[in-house]
Amino acid sequence: MAHSATRPARRADARQNAEKIVRAAVTCLGRSADASMNDIAREAGVGRVTLYGHFPSREALVEAALIRLLAQGDEVLEAVDLTGDPRDGLRALMESGWLLIAQAASVLQAAQASLPPGRVHELHAKPEQRVHDLIRRGQTEGVFRADVPAELLASVLHHVLHGAATDVATGRLDAADAARFVAEMALAVCVVPPARTGN
Amino acid sequence: MAHSATRPARRADARQNAEKIVRAAVTCLGRSADASMNDIAREAGVGRVTLYGHFPSREALVEAALIRLLAQGDEVLEAVDLTGDPRDGLRALMESGWLLIAQAASVLQAAQASLPPGRVHELHAKPEQRVHDLIRRGQTEGVFRADVPAELLASVLHHVLHGAATDVATGRLDAADAARFVAEMALAVCVVPPARTGN
Repeated sequence: MAHSATRPARRADARQNAEKIVRAAVTCLGRSADASMNDIAREAGVGRVTLYGHFPSREALVEAALIRLLAQGDEVLEAVDLTGDPRDGLRALMESGWLLIAQAASVLQAAQASLPPGRVHELHAKPEQRVHDLIRRGQTEGVFRADVPAELLASVLHHVLHGAATDVATGRLDAADAARFVAEMALAVCVVPPARTGN
Repeated sequence: MAHSATRPARRADARQNAEKIVRAAVTCLGRSADASMNDIAREAGVGRVTLYGHFPSREALVEAALIRLLAQGDEVLEAVDLTGDPRDGLRALMESGWLLIAQAASVLQAAQASLPPGRVHELHAKPEQRVHDLIRRGQTEGVFRADVPAELLASVLHHVLHGAATDVATGRLDAADAARFVAEMALAVCVVPPARTGN
């Protein structure tokens, strides 16, 4: 009886520890993409055994931190009004997306460095779906190009957005111009291209 | 006297070994992005001491392999005719660039995984200069947008090109369509955007 009574308490403890660890991972990786498992254990106030009990590898923990940030970002994107002209919606979505990426830059860098290629992109399924649905509506309404599948246009926007983060990090792009720039590029990618004129 | 007479021979040996190692690195990393220093030493037919004498770390050797491929790629791009309409030149340059990236996919993956963020992009200075000069000419001739600096447009094309390689690897983009697709996207990014119509 005593045994079964302590189980829910133990489960609650474990959940609390997992939560503390993920939060500490977001904090530490946000400060430095190279943050170690020890740094994160210290920040979370748990021992190595507890840490590795929840996350058997640094890769697993980096992924959990990224998933957490993506979930928080999704709440922000959820609030963006996408009901008007798809071009305005796309601009607003890219600008918000940029702010989220800029905040998450260091965690994203850790993820790019330690997760398998394509995995970071895979984890973006939900925000990508949002962009995808908007592009599809723009295609139906005739303002976005329909000669390229919406998934592929969404994928190009993903690369443009994440590429801009690298460009800011390497000094090619001024951080203050970045939101407007990625929105401008996203529109260029998506709108129906002009008919070719000239020779 | 004997000592100084053997020096040039030793230097020639060292050069030959370095050449063998870089070639072996291109081969091994081309087969698998995870190829180890041991794999490469075996392929080159040199010992570990010789290998590490030339390249103190795997990172240094991955970088040397990428630099080699970029130099070979530059000869291919050099042959692309860029003298006509900048839009045709851009299309041709992106299609050739895509073929080079597709061939170098595995080495690029190794480089992305082991070199610091932004370093792979930095090493592309020469092909990027080529794209940059073409964009500048297109801007002067009024076919490419001039509201974004040529360097930034070139950088977006870099991300689109390398993003497409990820999309092929993850199955989003059909390899057979990729060359045409990246050229189409590059034009969308660079041409003067259409005036906004509709509500």
